[in-house]
Amino acid sequence: MFRTNITAMQGYVPGEQPQGMEYVKLNTNENPYPCSPTVKAAIGRVLQVGLQRYPDPLATAFRERAAALLKDEVPGITPDWIMCGNGSDDILTIVTRSFVAPGGLIRFPRPSYVLYNTLAAIQGADSETVEFESDWTLDERFTATDERLQLAFLPNPNSPTGTVIAPSGVAHLAAALPCPLIVDEAYADFAETNCLGLVATNERILVTRTLSKSYSLAGLRFGFVVAQPQVIEQLNKVKDSYNCDSLSIAGATAAIDDQAHFVRTRDAILATRQRMTSALRGLGFDCIDSQANFVWCRHGQRDSRELYQQLKDAGVLVRYMNYAGWGEGLRISVGSDEQCDLLLAKLAAIV
Amino acid sequence: MFRTNITAMQGYVPGEQPQGMEYVKLNTNENPYPCSPTVKAAIGRVLQVGLQRYPDPLATAFRERAAALLKDEVPGITPDWIMCGNGSDDILTIVTRSFVAPGGLIRFPRPSYVLYNTLAAIQGADSETVEFESDWTLDERFTATDERLQLAFLPNPNSPTGTVIAPSGVAHLAAALPCPLIVDEAYADFAETNCLGLVATNERILVTRTLSKSYSLAGLRFGFVVAQPQVIEQLNKVKDSYNCDSLSIAGATAAIDDQAHFVRTRDAILATRQRMTSALRGLGFDCIDSQANFVWCRHGQRDSRELYQQLKDAGVLVRYMNYAGWGEGLRISVGSDEQCDLLLAKLAAIV
Repeated sequence: MFRTNITAMQGYVPGEQPQGMEYVKLNTNENPYPCSPTVKAAIGRVLQVGLQRYPDPLATAFRERAAALLKDEVPGITPDWIMCGNGSDDILTIVTRSFVAPGGLIRFPRPSYVLYNTLAAIQGADSETVEFESDWTLDERFTATDERLQLAFLPNPNSPTGTVIAPSGVAHLAAALPCPLIVDEAYADFAETNCLGLVATNERILVTRTLSKSYSLAGLRFGFVVAQPQVIEQLNKVKDSYNCDSLSIAGATAAIDDQAHFVRTRDAILATRQRMTSALRGLGFDCIDSQANFVWCRHGQRDSRELYQQLKDAGVLVRYMNYAGWGEGLRISVGSDEQCDLLLAKLAAIV
Repeated sequence: MFRTNITAMQGYVPGEQPQGMEYVKLNTNENPYPCSPTVKAAIGRVLQVGLQRYPDPLATAFRERAAALLKDEVPGITPDWIMCGNGSDDILTIVTRSFVAPGGLIRFPRPSYVLYNTLAAIQGADSETVEFESDWTLDERFTATDERLQLAFLPNPNSPTGTVIAPSGVAHLAAALPCPLIVDEAYADFAETNCLGLVATNERILVTRTLSKSYSLAGLRFGFVVAQPQVIEQLNKVKDSYNCDSLSIAGATAAIDDQAHFVRTRDAILATRQRMTSALRGLGFDCIDSQANFVWCRHGQRDSRELYQQLKDAGVLVRYMNYAGWGEGLRISVGSDEQCDLLLAKLAAIV
């Protein structure tokens, strides 16, 4: 009844989303601060008009505002350079279906976002991972020719490490790759650099973004991809006609229009990240310097899985991750200062 | 760069969704009445809590209420018999990816929902259409064995005709088919029968529903599929993790909880449908008796495309459809009584 690749695969297991339970929730990189109040106002206006009509299939209002916002970063950008999605997960699914045939190959770094493996399995394609170098760059194995290779994903900043490959390095990888490169910039708003500027230079570079993290809208499901217009035109064929709802289009548009709120909450997270990293190191953790809204760490003496469980028992949820053959650790989201203090107090009592 | 099936295909063109223009909009089967006021209240409560957290990946609140609501129609139903989607388009995409490999074959009736053809093309599969009999049933050509056949779609009520195959007939088709049968019940709330009861009898029958039409929530994007739990378990692997947002889950749950509102607006539409059908016949149209919230009609003397354009020029938007080799006509959504009166007045002036 089902395709054999579907029955054979494991489903992707997202981070725990306990419903109605009280945790200090630092496991899925949600933003601790509320979204801009203009989001609620914009959604309220849609509710006044009503929901009985279909949304704009192309989310034009958002694309117009986003193109205006990004015009200094992407030379020549117009709304036709943008496609919106039901979260950036939707975008990642659409690009997989657009570029990858069953039997094809998708390449991505290890450790990185586990979902890429799931996307390959659903499509009936194979995955190939390339380990990061010790300085968190990728060598020529990432760009090696393979006749089955149809797509490469590069999360940048990467999860779970929070590390970044500079735009010049990404441009080099894209130029050497024989296939499109999706630069997954879910966390780029927390980083010092991003790759939006590369899109105009190479039609095979696509940059994806989400409003889940930096705009505090994980519950709304809204993401987008920036690519050259002839690429967007093909991707639009593959998306569901009405993949973004009326409320999310209005809310997302309002969110990017309030840059003051965005900058304020982002800067708060960056400051807390710095403090949290130092404090974790003081507690005996090895931490990588992060350019995302989370910190990847391992304790010098203590087992990561046990620490995860002890923290959970103490009411603090973090993400335990184990990459077979590579290693394990804790990915801890940067919460509010209060959440950070509570985490550190619990950890101090445990370790 | 792109798969050849993607570059070769035409994208699906949804019905016109003019943004910010004033039309009597009878072209995409939207409900003319507002959704239940409880929907806005439920969405308002989510906005109060905030949107920074991810939604429940499995939309449990909705599935629990839906299972309770459907328990008399589906013997043994529990929440595990239900998967929710970002509109029923999302569900149709998920079942296609679950059952159909590239090079496979999808069968559906003609004329019916044009999107099925698009779903096949995106998947790199072929489409095969089987024409309805003169009484709008399907003969053994619909169930014929073909080693490439992996999925059959049956819109029931059908679009654009508004006709229904009785559950006994659908059970017969499903039993004879060598593949799963998706009964697309987007319009079933306007019909005298439905096929939910068949799900418990045959694991290869899946019934899809949407809240877009009968619950006035096209702008919210929410649909679901009812199937046996071992089938839902596999489908859950293929959906995006967070395919329904927090606002739509809350709104959809509130909508199905207000059955009084649902019955009131549905009954109003059924009464208007009856009056509109009679009046169209009085104006010289051939109309099929409809069990959906639209009427399919052709005028005895006048060209359908010209009528569509004349109505549009007069501010009334209907759907002109042309199925190559089968025929053309107008699919007119059942609006409010005021919209119906305006349509009929304009038509009376034109024909």
